Amino acid sequence: MSQRKLKVGMVGGGGPSNFFGAPHRRAILMDNSAELTAGALRSKPDESIASAKELFFTRGYGDWQSMIAAEAKLPVGERIDYVTIVTPNDAHYGPAEAAAAAGIGVLCEKPLTTTLEEAKQLQKTVQSHKTPFVVAYTYTGFPMVMFAKTLVKDGAIGEVRKVEAWYPQGWLATKLEESGQKQAAWRVDPSKAGASGCGGDIGTHAYEFVRFVAGLSATKISARLKAFIAGRALDDDFTVLAELENGGIATIAASQITIGAQNDNGFRISGSKGTLEWSITDHNNLKFLEGGQPVKVYRLGAEYGYFPEIIKPYIRVPSGHPEGFHEALANLHMTLQLQIRAKLGEKVPAAFPHPGIEDGVAGMAFVEAAVASSKAEGAWTKVG
Amino acid sequence: MSQRKLKVGMVGGGGPSNFFGAPHRRAILMDNSAELTAGALRSKPDESIASAKELFFTRGYGDWQSMIAAEAKLPVGERIDYVTIVTPNDAHYGPAEAAAAAGIGVLCEKPLTTTLEEAKQLQKTVQSHKTPFVVAYTYTGFPMVMFAKTLVKDGAIGEVRKVEAWYPQGWLATKLEESGQKQAAWRVDPSKAGASGCGGDIGTHAYEFVRFVAGLSATKISARLKAFIAGRALDDDFTVLAELENGGIATIAASQITIGAQNDNGFRISGSKGTLEWSITDHNNLKFLEGGQPVKVYRLGAEYGYFPEIIKPYIRVPSGHPEGFHEALANLHMTLQLQIRAKLGEKVPAAFPHPGIEDGVAGMAFVEAAVASSKAEGAWTKVG
Amino acid sequence: MSQRKLKVGMVGGGGPSNFFGAPHRRAILMDNSAELTAGALRSKPDESIASAKELFFTRGYGDWQSMIAAEAKLPVGERIDYVTIVTPNDAHYGPAEAAAAAGIGVLCEKPLTTTLEEAKQLQKTVQSHKTPFVVAYTYTGFPMVMFAKTLVKDGAIGEVRKVEAWYPQGWLATKLEESGQKQAAWRVDPSKAGASGCGGDIGTHAYEFVRFVAGLSATKISARLKAFIAGRALDDDFTVLAELENGGIATIAASQITIGAQNDNGFRISGSKGTLEWSITDHNNLKFLEGGQPVKVYRLGAEYGYFPEIIKPYIRVPSGHPEGFHEALANLHMTLQLQIRAKLGEKVPAAFPHPGIEDGVAGMAFVEAAVASSKAEGAWTKVG
Amino acid sequence: MSQRKLKVGMVGGGGPSNFFGAPHRRAILMDNSAELTAGALRSKPDESIASAKELFFTRGYGDWQSMIAAEAKLPVGERIDYVTIVTPNDAHYGPAEAAAAAGIGVLCEKPLTTTLEEAKQLQKTVQSHKTPFVVAYTYTGFPMVMFAKTLVKDGAIGEVRKVEAWYPQGWLATKLEESGQKQAAWRVDPSKAGASGCGGDIGTHAYEFVRFVAGLSATKISARLKAFIAGRALDDDFTVLAELENGGIATIAASQITIGAQNDNGFRISGSKGTLEWSITDHNNLKFLEGGQPVKVYRLGAEYGYFPEIIKPYIRVPSGHPEGFHEALANLHMTLQLQIRAKLGEKVPAAFPHPGIEDGVAGMAFVEAAVASSKAEGAWTKVG
Repeated sequence: MSQRKLKVGMVGGGGPSNFFGAPHRRAILMDNSAELTAGALRSKPDESIASAKELFFTRGYGDWQSMIAAEAKLPVGERIDYVTIVTPNDAHYGPAEAAAAAGIGVLCEKPLTTTLEEAKQLQKTVQSHKTPFVVAYTYTGFPMVMFAKTLVKDGAIGEVRKVEAWYPQGWLATKLEESGQKQAAWRVDPSKAGASGCGGDIGTHAYEFVRFVAGLSATKISARLKAFIAGRALDDDFTVLAELENGGIATIAASQITIGAQNDNGFRISGSKGTLEWSITDHNNLKFLEGGQPVKVYRLGAEYGYFPEIIKPYIRVPSGHPEGFHEALANLHMTLQLQIRAKLGEKVPAAFPHPGIEDGVAGMAFVEAAVASSKAEGAWTKVG
Repeated sequence: MSQRKLKVGMVGGGGPSNFFGAPHRRAILMDNSAELTAGALRSKPDESIASAKELFFTRGYGDWQSMIAAEAKLPVGERIDYVTIVTPNDAHYGPAEAAAAAGIGVLCEKPLTTTLEEAKQLQKTVQSHKTPFVVAYTYTGFPMVMFAKTLVKDGAIGEVRKVEAWYPQGWLATKLEESGQKQAAWRVDPSKAGASGCGGDIGTHAYEFVRFVAGLSATKISARLKAFIAGRALDDDFTVLAELENGGIATIAASQITIGAQNDNGFRISGSKGTLEWSITDHNNLKFLEGGQPVKVYRLGAEYGYFPEIIKPYIRVPSGHPEGFHEALANLHMTLQLQIRAKLGEKVPAAFPHPGIEDGVAGMAFVEAAVASSKAEGAWTKVG
Repeated sequence: MSQRKLKVGMVGGGGPSNFFGAPHRRAILMDNSAELTAGALRSKPDESIASAKELFFTRGYGDWQSMIAAEAKLPVGERIDYVTIVTPNDAHYGPAEAAAAAGIGVLCEKPLTTTLEEAKQLQKTVQSHKTPFVVAYTYTGFPMVMFAKTLVKDGAIGEVRKVEAWYPQGWLATKLEESGQKQAAWRVDPSKAGASGCGGDIGTHAYEFVRFVAGLSATKISARLKAFIAGRALDDDFTVLAELENGGIATIAASQITIGAQNDNGFRISGSKGTLEWSITDHNNLKFLEGGQPVKVYRLGAEYGYFPEIIKPYIRVPSGHPEGFHEALANLHMTLQLQIRAKLGEKVPAAFPHPGIEDGVAGMAFVEAAVASSKAEGAWTKVG
Repeated sequence: MSQRKLKVGMVGGGGPSNFFGAPHRRAILMDNSAELTAGALRSKPDESIASAKELFFTRGYGDWQSMIAAEAKLPVGERIDYVTIVTPNDAHYGPAEAAAAAGIGVLCEKPLTTTLEEAKQLQKTVQSHKTPFVVAYTYTGFPMVMFAKTLVKDGAIGEVRKVEAWYPQGWLATKLEESGQKQAAWRVDPSKAGASGCGGDIGTHAYEFVRFVAGLSATKISARLKAFIAGRALDDDFTVLAELENGGIATIAASQITIGAQNDNGFRISGSKGTLEWSITDHNNLKFLEGGQPVKVYRLGAEYGYFPEIIKPYIRVPSGHPEGFHEALANLHMTLQLQIRAKLGEKVPAAFPHPGIEDGVAGMAFVEAAVASSKAEGAWTKVG
C-alpha cells in the first residue's frame, strides 16, 4: 500500500484493568496501515494524558470532549480519520455522536448504546453526516463467518429455515463483581451496562450472527432472562426464540454461568438445500452439509480459490497458519479504513459489508424487546 | 454367567422396511444371555409367522394378542421372560398393557404411547403387577451418559442450574413421506405418531437427558412446534424452554429439518461447581469442565477405575475399542434382564436405574404440555 | 435371510482373564446368522468342557484336537462350518492347520503364527483345500476402512506415494506382566508371542493398513525395535520405514509405551491426486483431501449412496447411529460366512476382500524382516 | 510499558511475492513496543529503497551491507536495536554475521544458514559479542508449546522415552516451482536452500520440537530423504529416526507432498509418567495423558493460574479469544526484545528461553547428518 497511514483516535481502553483497549491497538497497528494518533483513554484527565503518552499516542487528551473538539479543527490528513470507542456501554453514545457529527469515522464497541432511543438518535446523526461507521461485532470479522454470509447470500443452502446462534461463557458463574474485578463490576450494573447484562454483552453478538450471516432480522421474539446469581441486578442467562422476516425461526442462547465455557460463540444455519456450521472453537473451518453428500469443510488460507475476491484482502496468511481473534478485530478496522479511504478518493478494494450503524440499532431493538418479553413471561413481542 | 438364557418375545420389527427390529435383535443376542423365542413381527398374520421363522424365532404368532395369550399360559422358563415392542407409536399400548398384566416384562420403544391418558393407564398396570419395565430411551444406555448421571448425583457439578439438550436430524427436510418411505410415513401421521411428530419422536429423547442425567423434571414449559414442510400435519421442529423443579432451567431443541444433522443428540449440564458435556458424535468421551482447571475428558474403557461398580458390567471392552449404538441398546436390555433375573431369584449385579414406566409417562406429559403451550403461542404450561 | 444359521466352533476364548473370546462371540451372534456350536475354550479339558456349557455352546470338547476330529466326521449342516481361533499366538497354527485340512473354514486371530515357516506351511494347506480363511485384522472390518480401500483402488488419490500407519498403545508402559495380568504375560514371552512383541501384536495391524488400503506390499524395510521396560525380552516399541512395490514409501509405527494412547490405530495415504485419512478415534468418518478444495468428510450410514454395493451389507444402521469395534469384528465373520455360504451354493452378496491367508503370511514375513533389520542396526532388509 | 519503542531493521521481506516479511512486520508492530526503522527489503537497491518507503520504514537502504554499516554508526536509541532477517536461506549468514559483529540483535529465519560450517562461524561471532539472538522456530512461540516445555522440565511426564514430531505439507505435491511461484522456486534450488529441501525448510522445525519441548538432542540418526517429484534436485519428503542423549528415541517426519496437509506440525512426547500432545490444528490446547486418569486438556487464557509467571506475558487475551500464528511469531520478537531491554538496563520480566544461536546450529548439524545418513542408505550417523 502506498497510501498514507490513517490516523486513529481512541476513547477509553487505557486503564490497567481495561480489557479491550489493547486488542484494538493490536488490530489498528497489525497491518502497518494506521497509527495511534489521539487518545482520551481514561476517565481522569491527568491519567488520560499520561496513558496516551505511555502508549505512544501522538496526542493525549484529558477527555473525549476536548479530543473530538480539537481534532475536528485540524485539516484532514492531520486530524484523526476515525475514533475507536472502547468504554463501558453507557459511554458509547457521547463520543460516537460527537465524532459522527464532526465527520470523524467511528468504530464503536457493542452494544451500540444503553437504550434504543440513543441508538436511533445516533443513527440519524451518522446517516445525515454519512459517517463511516462500524460496530465491533467482532466475530463477523472471522473470514469463515464472512464466507458463510457469502454462501448464504449466493443461495448455497437455499431458503433459510432455522438459525441457531449461541454464546455461552462461564466467567460470571460466581459473584465475581464483588471481588474488585472491574470488567465484571460494570457489566452487572444497569446504570453502566443497560437493561440487560448477558443479553446486551453477548446476546447481541449471537443475534448479529442471525442478521449478518443469514441476512434476516427478527420480527418478534419470546425471551427469558434470568439471574442465577443471587443479588445480581441484571440477567446472566439469556434465551430467545425469534420469528424471522422470511417466516423462518431462530434461537439465540447466551449465558455467563456455563462454567468452563470460555467464549464459545457460533452458529448453525439450515436452509432448504443445506446447512452451514461455524464455531469459534474451530474458527478457521466452516462446515457445509448437504443431504447424502460428504460433509465439506472449507478451510482458511489465502491461496484457496473458493474465496470470493471481496474476502481475499481479509485473509493474511497461507493455509495452515492459524489466524485468530486479533485478526478478526483487525478485519473490522480494515473495513472501516477501506470505507474511509474510498471516501478520501483512494483506490482501494471493496470493503466487506461488516456491521454498521443500522446493525448497532438493530441490536438495541433486540435487547429492548427481549427485556420486555421476559418481563411479560415470555410473551411474543415485536422487535421495534 | 451360568444362568439360563432369558427368553425374549418381539412385537413388530419384522417387515422389510422396518428400522428398529434388527438393532433390538442384535442387542438381545449380543451378550449370549438371551434368545429369540416368540415373535409377532408383522401386521398380517401369515407374514408375521413367516417372518418369525425366517428370523429364527422359536415360535411365531399371527398377532401380539395370541402371542401374549399363549405365552402367558406357559410356565416360567418356557414362556417368554419379556417382550420387546418395536411397533409404531400407536401400537405400543396394546401389547405393553397385555404383557404387563400377564406378568411378562416389557422393553417398549418410545414414546411410551400416543396419549398421556394411555400412558397413565399403563403405569397403573405395570405398578400393580410389579412388571419389570424399561423404555427405550436408548441414549441413556451409553456408558458415558450413565457416568454423567452418576457424577451429577454425586455432586460433582454442584447444584444444577441449566440443562441444554438437543437432537437435530435432517432426514425429514424434504417431503420424504410421499416417496413411499414407511418410516417417514407413519411418523408424520397423527393417527400413528400421536399429537407431536418431532417432539414425540426425538424431543422425548432430549427431555429424558434432562430427567435422567440431571435427575430433574420440568414443572412448566414454553414450547414452539412448527412444520417447515408445507402440508405436513405434525411438527418437524420442536423447541422448548422449561423450568425445573429445583428452580433451574432447561432448553430442549429437536429438529428433523436440519440438513446434514444425522442423529446428533447430546447435552450440557451446568451447575454451581462445573459443567458436563456429552454428544453422540463423540460418545465414548465425557467432558467435565471446572473453573480455572484443565478440562477433564473421561474416556470409555472397562479397566478405568473411575467408573463406579454399577456401571462396569455395562462396558464390554478395554479402552480404545469403540462401542456404539448396539451396545447402548443392549445395555437397556441388560438392565431389564438384570431386573428379571433378580425377580427370579438369581444372584446378579445391581441394575442401573435406566428409564422405566414413570419415565415413559413423564415423556408423554411433556409432549402433551408442549403441544398445548405451542397452541397457546408459547404460553407457560404446567407439565402434568 | 432365509438360510440356515451357520455353525461356529471356537478354540480358546473361554477363561476368566481371556480378552477376545467374548468380542468374537458377540460378533458371531450379532447378526442372527450363526450359532455357537462347538467349543474347546480352555487349556484344561474339564475346564474347557465346563466353559462351553456355561457359554451355551451346543457341544463342548476337552481340546481342539478332539473337536476338529469329531466335527470333521459330522455331515455338513451338522458339523461346524468354521472355527474361530482366539488362543495366544503360539496356539494358532495347530488348530488352523487341522481345520483347514478338514475342510472347515477358519477365522484366525493375528499374527497368523509365530514363525514365517509355520505360516507358509499353513498357507499350503489352506490353498490346497480351498478353505475359506480370514485373518482377524479387525480394523479392516470398519466400513470406512473398506471404503478407503475402494477409493484408492478406484484411483481417487492417483498413484500412491506414501502411507503412514500407526498404532500406539500405553498399557505396557509399566511392567504389567509381573502383576499377574495374563494378557500382558504371554504377549511379552517369546515362546508364546513369537520373535516380536509390539511388532507382532500391533505392528502387523498397522502394516495390514498398508497392504489392505493401499493395496501395496513392502519390498524392503529398515526397522528399529526397542524394549523400553528393563528386563522385557521382546520389543515394546516398533518403528519401520518401508519401500513399497510401486516405488512409494511407508512408515509403520507401533508402540506399547505411549501412556494414555488407548488403541489409537489409523493411517494416512497420500497419492498424486489426494490424501485419505482415517483414525479409530473417529472411525465412522473418512477424510478425503484434495488440493485447493474443501476437505470432504465421508460419514457412515446405510443410506448414503456413495458406498459401493459390496460395502452396503456391512453397514447395519442409518447414519448417526454409531457402530464400533464389535461391528467391525462381525464384518470379518460376515465375510467368512459369505464365502462359506457361496461355497455351499447359497445365493449371497459378494464378500468384501478382507484379509485372507496370504495376508497372514505377509504379516509374518514383515515381522521376520523387521526383527532381522533391527538386529542389523536398521539395515535395509528384504521382506520374504 | 513506559519504555521507548525498540527500533527494528529488516533484511528481505519486501517483494510482492515475499511470504514472511508481512507476518514479521505484523509481529513487530502488534504489541506497540517496537517500530519499523530501517529496511533493506529487496535485492535491487532502488526497489529496496522504494519498498522501505512504501512500507513506512523510517529509513530505506539499497542493501543490507550499507544498512548495517550505517546503523552501526548511530548511537543506541537512534540506531536499530535488532534486525529481522527474512531472506532465502543462502542470504541469512551475511547480514546475521554483520549485525552480530556490530552488536545489533538478530532475529533470523530458519534454517540458520545453508551449511553447518557457516552456522558455527556465526555462533562464534554471536557468542563473542554477546549478541541477543533468536532463531525463528516460530512454533516454539505458541504458548501451549512453551507450557509443554515447562511441564516436561518440571517432571510432569517423568523421564522422556519417545518423541514424535511431524510436519506434513502438501503444497509441493506438484512441480509448483515451474509455475513461476518464487517461494517454491528457491526452496527446491540447492544453491539457495542448502543440502536439504524438505528437511531444511520444515524438518528443522520438527526437530526443534524435540530439542525445545523435550530438552533433548539427537546423538545419532538414521534418515531417508526422497524427492517424489521427478526432476526435483532436493528432497520433498524427509523421515528421520533418532537416538536421544538420554537413551530415548525420536521420530521426525516432514513432507511436502502430503496433499491436503496445510502446515500441520505437532508433537507427542511420552515419558515414564505420562504423555503430552500438541498440534497446530488445535494449537490453543495441550493434552496431558496419564494412565487410568481422565485426559487433561489445558486451554489458553491469560487468567488461568496453571501457567507459570514466565509464560504469562506471552498470552495476550482471556480464554476463548483464539490467538494464532502472528502472536506466536510476535512471541519470538518479544523474547528478543526482552533480552535487548534487559541488556539496556530496563526492568523487564524474564524472557522465555526461546531458540537462540545454538539451536540454529543444532538444526544445521541435524540436516547435515540427515543428508549424510540418507546417502548411506539410512546408516546411523552421528549428529555433529
